[in-house]
Amino acid sequence: MNRQDPEGAIAEAAKAYSNWGRWGEDVLGTLNFLDEAKRREGAALVRRGASFSLSQSFDMNGPQQGWRRRTNPVHTMLDTGTDAALGNQGFPHGIGGADDMIAMPLQCSTQWDGLGHIFDHGRAWNRRDAARTVTSEGDLVTGIEHMAPYVAGRGVLLDVGRVVGSGNELPDGFTIAEEHLAATAEAQGVTIGRGDIVVVRTGRLTRARHKGWGDYAGGAAPGLSFTTAGWLHRTEIAAIATDTWGFEVRSNEFEGAFQPLHQVVIPNMGLLIGKMWDLDALAEDRARDAVYKFWLTAAPLPITGAVGSPVNPIAVK
Amino acid sequence: MNRQDPEGAIAEAAKAYSNWGRWGEDVLGTLNFLDEAKRREGAALVRRGASFSLSQSFDMNGPQQGWRRRTNPVHTMLDTGTDAALGNQGFPHGIGGADDMIAMPLQCSTQWDGLGHIFDHGRAWNRRDAARTVTSEGDLVTGIEHMAPYVAGRGVLLDVGRVVGSGNELPDGFTIAEEHLAATAEAQGVTIGRGDIVVVRTGRLTRARHKGWGDYAGGAAPGLSFTTAGWLHRTEIAAIATDTWGFEVRSNEFEGAFQPLHQVVIPNMGLLIGKMWDLDALAEDRARDAVYKFWLTAAPLPITGAVGSPVNPIAVK
Amino acid sequence: MNRQDPEGAIAEAAKAYSNWGRWGEDVLGTLNFLDEAKRREGAALVRRGASFSLSQSFDMNGPQQGWRRRTNPVHTMLDTGTDAALGNQGFPHGIGGADDMIAMPLQCSTQWDGLGHIFDHGRAWNRRDAARTVTSEGDLVTGIEHMAPYVAGRGVLLDVGRVVGSGNELPDGFTIAEEHLAATAEAQGVTIGRGDIVVVRTGRLTRARHKGWGDYAGGAAPGLSFTTAGWLHRTEIAAIATDTWGFEVRSNEFEGAFQPLHQVVIPNMGLLIGKMWDLDALAEDRARDAVYKFWLTAAPLPITGAVGSPVNPIAVK
Amino acid sequence: MNRQDPEGAIAEAAKAYSNWGRWGEDVLGTLNFLDEAKRREGAALVRRGASFSLSQSFDMNGPQQGWRRRTNPVHTMLDTGTDAALGNQGFPHGIGGADDMIAMPLQCSTQWDGLGHIFDHGRAWNRRDAARTVTSEGDLVTGIEHMAPYVAGRGVLLDVGRVVGSGNELPDGFTIAEEHLAATAEAQGVTIGRGDIVVVRTGRLTRARHKGWGDYAGGAAPGLSFTTAGWLHRTEIAAIATDTWGFEVRSNEFEGAFQPLHQVVIPNMGLLIGKMWDLDALAEDRARDAVYKFWLTAAPLPITGAVGSPVNPIAVK
Repeated sequence: MNRQDPEGAIAEAAKAYSNWGRWGEDVLGTLNFLDEAKRREGAALVRRGASFSLSQSFDMNGPQQGWRRRTNPVHTMLDTGTDAALGNQGFPHGIGGADDMIAMPLQCSTQWDGLGHIFDHGRAWNRRDAARTVTSEGDLVTGIEHMAPYVAGRGVLLDVGRVVGSGNELPDGFTIAEEHLAATAEAQGVTIGRGDIVVVRTGRLTRARHKGWGDYAGGAAPGLSFTTAGWLHRTEIAAIATDTWGFEVRSNEFEGAFQPLHQVVIPNMGLLIGKMWDLDALAEDRARDAVYKFWLTAAPLPITGAVGSPVNPIAVK
Repeated sequence: MNRQDPEGAIAEAAKAYSNWGRWGEDVLGTLNFLDEAKRREGAALVRRGASFSLSQSFDMNGPQQGWRRRTNPVHTMLDTGTDAALGNQGFPHGIGGADDMIAMPLQCSTQWDGLGHIFDHGRAWNRRDAARTVTSEGDLVTGIEHMAPYVAGRGVLLDVGRVVGSGNELPDGFTIAEEHLAATAEAQGVTIGRGDIVVVRTGRLTRARHKGWGDYAGGAAPGLSFTTAGWLHRTEIAAIATDTWGFEVRSNEFEGAFQPLHQVVIPNMGLLIGKMWDLDALAEDRARDAVYKFWLTAAPLPITGAVGSPVNPIAVK
Repeated sequence: MNRQDPEGAIAEAAKAYSNWGRWGEDVLGTLNFLDEAKRREGAALVRRGASFSLSQSFDMNGPQQGWRRRTNPVHTMLDTGTDAALGNQGFPHGIGGADDMIAMPLQCSTQWDGLGHIFDHGRAWNRRDAARTVTSEGDLVTGIEHMAPYVAGRGVLLDVGRVVGSGNELPDGFTIAEEHLAATAEAQGVTIGRGDIVVVRTGRLTRARHKGWGDYAGGAAPGLSFTTAGWLHRTEIAAIATDTWGFEVRSNEFEGAFQPLHQVVIPNMGLLIGKMWDLDALAEDRARDAVYKFWLTAAPLPITGAVGSPVNPIAVK
Repeated sequence: MNRQDPEGAIAEAAKAYSNWGRWGEDVLGTLNFLDEAKRREGAALVRRGASFSLSQSFDMNGPQQGWRRRTNPVHTMLDTGTDAALGNQGFPHGIGGADDMIAMPLQCSTQWDGLGHIFDHGRAWNRRDAARTVTSEGDLVTGIEHMAPYVAGRGVLLDVGRVVGSGNELPDGFTIAEEHLAATAEAQGVTIGRGDIVVVRTGRLTRARHKGWGDYAGGAAPGLSFTTAGWLHRTEIAAIATDTWGFEVRSNEFEGAFQPLHQVVIPNMGLLIGKMWDLDALAEDRARDAVYKFWLTAAPLPITGAVGSPVNPIAVK
């Protein structure tokens, strides 16, 4: 990794780890690695039947501060129990109802990044022209609705915060390298394989719980090193998610860069990335069974043309 | 069922099939029936590893026409590939990005009704005062976020449209009685049990696909009879969903009534109800394996205080 | 006007009636014609002191049907009198409050089109590059906020619907030519001059009141002829508004064209155009005083970077 | 004013300054004072023809921090010049277009408070039952749409910040009493009369411009004293607006109180109150002509059932 030439280093990694053309006229990227056999393998991991949500709450107490017009979700009521109780609704026989709505950026909280979320020099996933792929009408080709049925398989937790960190957390700016991923997997007795959905706990969200959001949404944070691009490519995982805003380490490893690992893995590798997942309840459950493998369903809402989706991932083990 | 006294009939059923107090200070209702054993049973149904989305698309081509301010989802872009390609974004090294947002009623498309969605004479689930439970700030007690980790278990499809209907569809106004549910289960070789998530296909959505939405959102439709309240209670299912707007038959069975079965099953029974699910792909797959039981994950977004949630239910078999 | 060559005819008119460069590095277009002397002239028209709103209501009963994601306004409550009365709000000493919000396309109802609303072959007003002027972040140069202080001056009503039409209305598809504008002005005893804000009543909104919206938002309607471009330029009016969706006649006069007069007058002439104004109350008042000139304030909301704005124009005479 | 008994003091003022029943079944409150004669008087004040916007910008750089779900406006594009330039829009003959939308609380920036915005012990304006007046469907009786045609008349600026303050600003917490209003009026050579729209500049917004928003939206600020209720009633002004978030002084004058002057003047007096107006450009213009009286149009958007409205007030002198 040549720190003196970020654009060159990015281009080199993009080329080395590209999956362009690997699956033809594709709209799924690495989700192609998650096949039926992998799902059978994942389902077999349900032993206790305990289920866990890996999602943060969606409300105005979230981390967003307005960058790129990313706000926290605004939930409002269209009808209420209050109105029902006072007989304001005009329904017969004593029935009353409440309705509600939400307005939110699809990147505001626990989410998947769609394949149309990041571009590299005007190219979207699979060498497509970004300008013809994601317009004001949305992602006309690789919208997240295409992934709707498929994001269910074998999940593996890598609790790097616990294994490598101190006090169950990695410090901000900590660069998670391949060796840390390997050490964590070994300590936990798991192996990562083709088609897996890997969830990496850094402890950054845990810290936000203790100390307040601060600049959780965009500030310094632990995260994957740019150098893990090869690992992400070689392992042929289907997807990866973290408990951080940015997935990769912040500040970024090249001076003046912005999310260089994204630039490699989304448009070039076609990797499905999750962010701001809440891995604490699942991680804490290890005290009970020391199990890090589970059945994971993390279904994006099929919002037509979306470049991302909020998600409530459910782990069952 | 006394058709001359709807309010009396509703009150009678509400009392007969009430689960108030059954689980103490409860916020989950019949989801309590879905336990870890049931999840183990459900996971064991994954044989092929094939997965299916049971969700409609979320976009402006949906069925809503504005009743009670229910609109279709409005998806808009905050940044686009177009702008990225033209270098409008100010990012370094050739990276570009797209962001987006959504504004939508939580009742606009494939959804779960939360326990705070319906009231009976000013009472919410578990005898709570509706006026103190669901205010302008949302459902302060039984918000759908409480269900976030749990909606994963054994799913059973009852394809009443195919078994009882003609041409794979039930006609509008068709009242699905207990006998039709039983006949369908028998024809399909399945039994419904405690903790199951039952999905009932009527064919109404299939018809909308052929003939246009028309008044799909609120108009005449097949659906469950008011008289199935006893079955819904007795079977101790965890949840039930249909491919219709209204779950129960429309027009309603009492003159002048509005969704009387809702009034019984949500606030009194605590039943989790799903609507506007798309069961066609799953149902069509029967031609391949004649299997109607599957592992089902239907995780609501944990929107704090919401009385409902959009959902992308994933069936795996 | 060569109907066989629409693109050529548009180009010819665009060139003939261009104001590019007329006011230097300009962000106001023809609003430059509305000077302080004109405001003094307008204010002197206040004789009775009677005031009129020229705005439609902003609510879900509007004409929009979803074209280009244009919906009707969605108004929702954040707090209500209902909750206040029940003591749900936690305020002291008996005070209670209600708050609300709105989500709406800026083109949904009574509006001004900003200078960034229409482009001609990739050119925005004053020869600017459309792709650098109006991005996903909005109109970076000619946002409607620049006009915020200035839209107040002399208004003149041309009630073409009454003078030229029958039964107070022009039929759908009626092409208002320069001669109709002249005949109306003469019949009303008014002259149009530099810096005026002209409001043209066709009766189309009146008809929608009687017969329902139908396809008010985009369908057939009376409106200005493409051939009025010269008149619009020569008169040096500051702005013009109609009671129709489209300002110009619909169907458009060239086969296969879409709003060709817009293409000439917004990006090339820099003309401020208003749409969907409600001119009926003002027009009906003529029975009392036969006055068609008035003081008009039609202040856009200074939404930063907006390409249009809802507006409540106030006429006082 | 008995500081030991806030609720008693509020009740006393509410009774003393009530206008309940004064105008029968009324929906306009003190706007009734603004008659045609007053409009003629106001129009006669247009001498130079110079116009001023008294509105802040509507964008995400505003003061809101989320209290009561009040966010800053979110402006998004539905179509852009970028897409037009790239030929993504499918329009003929080289025409392109941009559309946009906004989502915002009606209380987010420069605004009018409607009569349904505040209640006193469950009573809305004119003794109405708050619970029947402002429901989840909005203000069913006194919605701001009723005021749409009328808010145009004589405006008077009281620049208390300049006359009474130091460095052109009043300090936070400064209580503007009747004597300060009188001293300012006298220093400026103006008298306040029946039907006037009074705009009071404190300098609080000027300070926010220099020092950042801080807690402009709800924190300490200069403002009217509770004791000015009598003056507000006696002068029979039509409306009053300030350059602050809260109109009345913050912190409030009674311990534990919340906006007690609101509680008196909105539901009991029926006074139209404006907030967060930007009075700086108008105030600075005094250096040129020392004129504090002007024609003012401040037309709320006729949002059906709204308890407030954003507004771009236009002063012309």
